[in-house]
Amino acid sequence: MTANTVVGVPTETAAGERRVALVPKVVEKLRSRGLDVVVEPGAATAALIPDDAYTAAGATLGDPWQADLVVKVAAPTADEAAKLRRGASLIGFLAPLTAPAGISALREAGVTGYAVESIPRISRAQSMDALSSQANVAGYRAALLAAEHLTRFFPMLTTAAGTVPPAKVLVLGVGVAGLQALATARRLGARTTGYDVRPEVAEQVRSVGAQWLDLGIEAGGSGGYARTLTDAEREEQQHQLGKAIGGFDAVITTAQVPGRTAPRLVTAEAVRGMRPGGVVVDLAGESGGNCELSEPGGTVVAHDVTVTAPLNLPATMPEHASELYARNVLALIELLVDDSGALRPDFADEIVRGACVTGEGE
Amino acid sequence: MTANTVVGVPTETAAGERRVALVPKVVEKLRSRGLDVVVEPGAATAALIPDDAYTAAGATLGDPWQADLVVKVAAPTADEAAKLRRGASLIGFLAPLTAPAGISALREAGVTGYAVESIPRISRAQSMDALSSQANVAGYRAALLAAEHLTRFFPMLTTAAGTVPPAKVLVLGVGVAGLQALATARRLGARTTGYDVRPEVAEQVRSVGAQWLDLGIEAGGSGGYARTLTDAEREEQQHQLGKAIGGFDAVITTAQVPGRTAPRLVTAEAVRGMRPGGVVVDLAGESGGNCELSEPGGTVVAHDVTVTAPLNLPATMPEHASELYARNVLALIELLVDDSGALRPDFADEIVRGACVTGEGE
Repeated sequence: MTANTVVGVPTETAAGERRVALVPKVVEKLRSRGLDVVVEPGAATAALIPDDAYTAAGATLGDPWQADLVVKVAAPTADEAAKLRRGASLIGFLAPLTAPAGISALREAGVTGYAVESIPRISRAQSMDALSSQANVAGYRAALLAAEHLTRFFPMLTTAAGTVPPAKVLVLGVGVAGLQALATARRLGARTTGYDVRPEVAEQVRSVGAQWLDLGIEAGGSGGYARTLTDAEREEQQHQLGKAIGGFDAVITTAQVPGRTAPRLVTAEAVRGMRPGGVVVDLAGESGGNCELSEPGGTVVAHDVTVTAPLNLPATMPEHASELYARNVLALIELLVDDSGALRPDFADEIVRGACVTGEGE
Repeated sequence: MTANTVVGVPTETAAGERRVALVPKVVEKLRSRGLDVVVEPGAATAALIPDDAYTAAGATLGDPWQADLVVKVAAPTADEAAKLRRGASLIGFLAPLTAPAGISALREAGVTGYAVESIPRISRAQSMDALSSQANVAGYRAALLAAEHLTRFFPMLTTAAGTVPPAKVLVLGVGVAGLQALATARRLGARTTGYDVRPEVAEQVRSVGAQWLDLGIEAGGSGGYARTLTDAEREEQQHQLGKAIGGFDAVITTAQVPGRTAPRLVTAEAVRGMRPGGVVVDLAGESGGNCELSEPGGTVVAHDVTVTAPLNLPATMPEHASELYARNVLALIELLVDDSGALRPDFADEIVRGACVTGEGE
């Protein structure tokens, strides 16, 4: 009888990262599938999950880096990657498009790396879609941030002394984060409008009670992302958005193209056209921002409009963000192991092949 | 022909106060009633309303303290009170129960003071009810703060990888702020529960989609407020609340008795019984707080539960808070002036008599 496959869960070390790759409920599921789990002591302290919740779920505490399969949220640092065993596997947001040096290091170390962002966005892989699960968190938090910074109510308020109208919220870029931002702003009582260069999302925008802003520029791409606009299209888009944005109290932007600088959707002039007390929440800060005035990771006030570009919003809600991510990781692990719980990836499977960015399946 | 009555609008000087007592729309209304309005330059800068919006509405910029009727949000400081003309009138949150020295100073200065918090809570005075209008803002912001600090989603979230349940939110003390907090938390998708010692509010709690928590302690009082509990009742209440609170993700407290220290509803032990990542938002910080761990004006984390006791939440949403307050002030002024716009208070009117805390009508 061979030893069980060991899954290792390190502490995340990136600044501000409060998530953890596995939660106790998922540890239980892995144990029942015949895998062992080693959790670094304190790995989930920032997510407010105590070590004993992991041991109660069947994990042991110890060095996670010697495991057969290490599961992380963020890509490992160079020091961390050096701790991985040759022949080990690794799951995480490995950033293959934006951090190729990290991928090369893993390849040289003989590690089979599975990047969750490279999982093909097909129906069968929905349960593994960590980009979507974390984007749900980011979109929800973005709407809360907009409400927090606005000097006005989101909902219509009817009082004995009169009525205040609902806030008008515009979401630019309607993927999972944008839809969740629209849905949350609408729940809070705002009048919502969505804009995207992919005409096929208009129906989804309407399904969450929002209006569809049609600027006549269409740029559907592949894998659910938009293609990059031509210069002329971009100029026309900025011009038309600039006119539209002045009519909104809050603008939430989420437009990103994988591996590229985020498109500039909100110019400084458009911000100047907003009413004092308005808000721009820019979720594309990690790739440079959608708003010309954004300072990624910071908040600026310009012309009495607050422009905030928070980084890593999922980490601000670590319990549920970790829980959703852990379920995605579980679904991927279930695809990588055989009935006895041994790692036996089938690189003929398009999900496994797609996710694998270093090693045998790349 | 006599000169018009002049209404003066000073800049608020309390730390963190961003509201202003009149907004341009209300200036227009006063002008059409035959009153003049003098606004201190920059009075509404913190509320993001420019001076020229006031002049466009018919106000002049100048020294507001020489006016016949000075309208403020917060009670004036001693220095400010000294600037008032003998014989002038003043409207504001004059805090007659908690700041009697300020009231005495106004009396000695020969000022007729109208405290908005002393307006009788009768139907005819609803349009002047500044306590309610500002409590609406505070309750809304309290629910947003709870959502912001919680490490979990408020709404139920259904994803391809599974479902997260909605947050459970408990509101203790269900006046206007508590009802608005319940309504806002419910809008955001939380499961909500309300508690109050006044059994008559159970129906209102249910009307905003919340459950009613019945601990069997009833203490209805007068003027819409609860009476102070006996020692035995308070002990029983703390004991039972302590048991109940552990089942909630977020607790918002709003229990205040005018002129008294806020009742202690959430003990340190009750906080210890909450799940890590939970939140207590204590709106009673100005009168000492409803939670034993609250630091008024601050946020503490105890046993991984965030306890925040913000002061003056209405000031964090200055545009709408000012607009609602200004409408309340307008309704009161309309009661104090005659058809020509001259100040002619009828102290036989129970609203005028109730509001007047110094001067002829006290």
